[in-house]
Amino acid sequence: MNDNLDILKNANISIVNDEISRIFFNEISEDYDQIIDGTDKLLLPGFINTHTHVPMTIFRGLGDDMKDRLTRLLFPLENSCLNDEIVHASSLLSLSEMLLSGTTCFADMYTFTDATARASNELGIRAFIGQGITDERSGEQLNADHGFELFENFIEKYRNDPLINGALAPHSVYMSSEPLLQRCRELSDKYEVPFLIHLAEQPWEADPYLEEHGSVVKYLQNIGALNNRFIGAHGILVSDEDMKILANVGASISHCPAGNSKSGRPIAPIHEYMQEGVNITLATDGPMSGNHMDMMSVMNCAPKMQKVKYQNRALCPASEILKMATINGAKALNIDHLVGSVEVGKKADLMVVNPQTLNMLPLYDYYAAIVYAMQPNNIQHVFVNGDLKVKDSKLVHTTEEDVIQKFSVAYDFVEAESRELLKKATQSE
Amino acid sequence: MNDNLDILKNANISIVNDEISRIFFNEISEDYDQIIDGTDKLLLPGFINTHTHVPMTIFRGLGDDMKDRLTRLLFPLENSCLNDEIVHASSLLSLSEMLLSGTTCFADMYTFTDATARASNELGIRAFIGQGITDERSGEQLNADHGFELFENFIEKYRNDPLINGALAPHSVYMSSEPLLQRCRELSDKYEVPFLIHLAEQPWEADPYLEEHGSVVKYLQNIGALNNRFIGAHGILVSDEDMKILANVGASISHCPAGNSKSGRPIAPIHEYMQEGVNITLATDGPMSGNHMDMMSVMNCAPKMQKVKYQNRALCPASEILKMATINGAKALNIDHLVGSVEVGKKADLMVVNPQTLNMLPLYDYYAAIVYAMQPNNIQHVFVNGDLKVKDSKLVHTTEEDVIQKFSVAYDFVEAESRELLKKATQSE
Ligand SMILES: [Zn+2]
Ligand SMILES: [Zn+2]
Repeated sequence: MNDNLDILKNANISIVNDEISRIFFNEISEDYDQIIDGTDKLLLPGFINTHTHVPMTIFRGLGDDMKDRLTRLLFPLENSCLNDEIVHASSLLSLSEMLLSGTTCFADMYTFTDATARASNELGIRAFIGQGITDERSGEQLNADHGFELFENFIEKYRNDPLINGALAPHSVYMSSEPLLQRCRELSDKYEVPFLIHLAEQPWEADPYLEEHGSVVKYLQNIGALNNRFIGAHGILVSDEDMKILANVGASISHCPAGNSKSGRPIAPIHEYMQEGVNITLATDGPMSGNHMDMMSVMNCAPKMQKVKYQNRALCPASEILKMATINGAKALNIDHLVGSVEVGKKADLMVVNPQTLNMLPLYDYYAAIVYAMQPNNIQHVFVNGDLKVKDSKLVHTTEEDVIQKFSVAYDFVEAESRELLKKATQSE
Repeated sequence: MNDNLDILKNANISIVNDEISRIFFNEISEDYDQIIDGTDKLLLPGFINTHTHVPMTIFRGLGDDMKDRLTRLLFPLENSCLNDEIVHASSLLSLSEMLLSGTTCFADMYTFTDATARASNELGIRAFIGQGITDERSGEQLNADHGFELFENFIEKYRNDPLINGALAPHSVYMSSEPLLQRCRELSDKYEVPFLIHLAEQPWEADPYLEEHGSVVKYLQNIGALNNRFIGAHGILVSDEDMKILANVGASISHCPAGNSKSGRPIAPIHEYMQEGVNITLATDGPMSGNHMDMMSVMNCAPKMQKVKYQNRALCPASEILKMATINGAKALNIDHLVGSVEVGKKADLMVVNPQTLNMLPLYDYYAAIVYAMQPNNIQHVFVNGDLKVKDSKLVHTTEEDVIQKFSVAYDFVEAESRELLKKATQSE
């Protein structure tokens, strides 16, 4: 995933502390503490998932295929059930699924951010945890000012943590006032952290801005919200002009094809974004949207949707898709000097893939095998920041059993609350 | 998957010989040879994959994202490389992937059918192995008469085999003369086996029939090729009238959304087929088309494509999708009295799923969890015809290592042959 997309065969790599210190092809002669045999394996940079809501695993599968499930089920449950403990247990489950499937870094938008940060630290995954901020009360936030206070406390608390980063996460233009968006931009610049937002997803989203600005993207540009720290999730309903604006300011798009399609949305014009030079990244979205939290499901879905949209099997080839899932994500988060490729001097955020399996063989073309055939079971080891976090397809710092045990306690509580709502929702249909 | 879609909680089932003999809810009192604890597990009917080309795993990933790869790579390789041994090794690999992921029955279209039958028997999967028949020489067939002779020999050889069934598999209307299609229909009726064909997939496919017949489906109806043994793969470019015809004769469609989308085809109008009452089944297509041979990838892709096509998240709900992958497949193959649901008197073609995993929890809705979240690693045991063929996620009758070893020998031969062709194909671009 370097600029030339070099494929290095029979290479060795040394990791010293948190970094890739050397890539070499001769015999191993130096001292080492540990050696991992990669014969017949593939070494890839870790996946970077740029748009998630990891605490929402607790709601996964609730009201799938149902209209208006957000207003009928999710929002009432979020109001009645959410707390630090549930967010922690739920984040732990999805982050475990993500880490085991090769995701080494993610950007999240939700509330109770400290609980998600603790879960990330327990597993050892690199995190950009966006503080969900709205004008009204929501989640742990009493009002917008309180939201910004929580954000700054988070930044202060994790200032020296090598893996935990903050981010601003206003939900969308339709749930944020103009002053709120501007304050998010100021703080994003001040602390040099991402500005995460849902963008151009809803058909009615642009209506309030059409007359004065022309589009949601132009509105955001006019109020100064766009720059290279801006990451818009979805970006489905955009014009050529919108794409040019996003390209010019160096903003990025989190493309979430698995969630978008399950929600019956149009297919985002990723091929056109690429033509315009916009940085396209891939993401699962939350577990209520796409259900799978592994990036392979998304890598598999993305090119198929584009090939269908433009009726051209040659569009969005596998190598482009793997870039979206790795180095492009690093660019969006402005950490491409640190991660996103296997290059000397970068942090060792890596995965070892075993392709010698029934589902992945043969290997005419590595990119095709990775994008179209690889599945979570192919991920053998995962490094974050130079340390093994998954070894032989098992979590290093905890066990799946323990994660599931904690999750089940949280689920029993939420499930009981959901029953009345589901009954009401079904009766009203 | 019975007519009421009953979900039985805390049920026990007895299997005697090849059949489900009893479903009961009280304590287990009778004698048994073996007991399998299903606490917190799900028991489902095995998946039925109604359209495959399993010997083509040897070509998986070759020229993905390339235009005209069939004419530039596949057809020359099929002419120069195919033989009984390669088809056997290649079938063994994909059938292992299929069985381990819960597929208990498949319908195939290819050549060297005896090699695929032997591979099926070694693993213990239920098979409908369609003899690929064309007017010209192709694969093991010297001409059409020879193809029909091979078919009748196959039927004779496997007449008493409980798991191996034959089928007629003319490739498509554009690769079959009218007399050939009529002979296929006669033999399909005589031996009571399926009539498998690629249908309404190519944009130019209908051209020769438009003036005289109006459509490919009407042409097939006019020459007497349609009845309830007819299974058309893809069925993308059809009219309302075509759908009504297919519904009236009781024909079925093999929907292959993963392969279709990777090929940049339009999305088949499955929602409309369902409205018209056509029996819709699911299929992977060959491993060059969709790459994944597990039915979970297809179940996941199918509803997303329909929701995108009709921009409606409530279409093709998960329960309908699971029907397509199980009982509808049995109906298409006219074996729904034997398999496709967990009911007393049916053959025990079943899978035990472990949903207590990071990727599948929680379980608000079993159908949603199965269709949107389940992955091959969730399949724990698989029964075919009353016998365990997969136990604790491992093949019972062989090992993955042995399957991969045989496959690798075949691959080395084919890969060497492919290099020249790939070079030519790349140079001509
Ligand atoms: Zn989202
Ligand atoms: Zn096919």
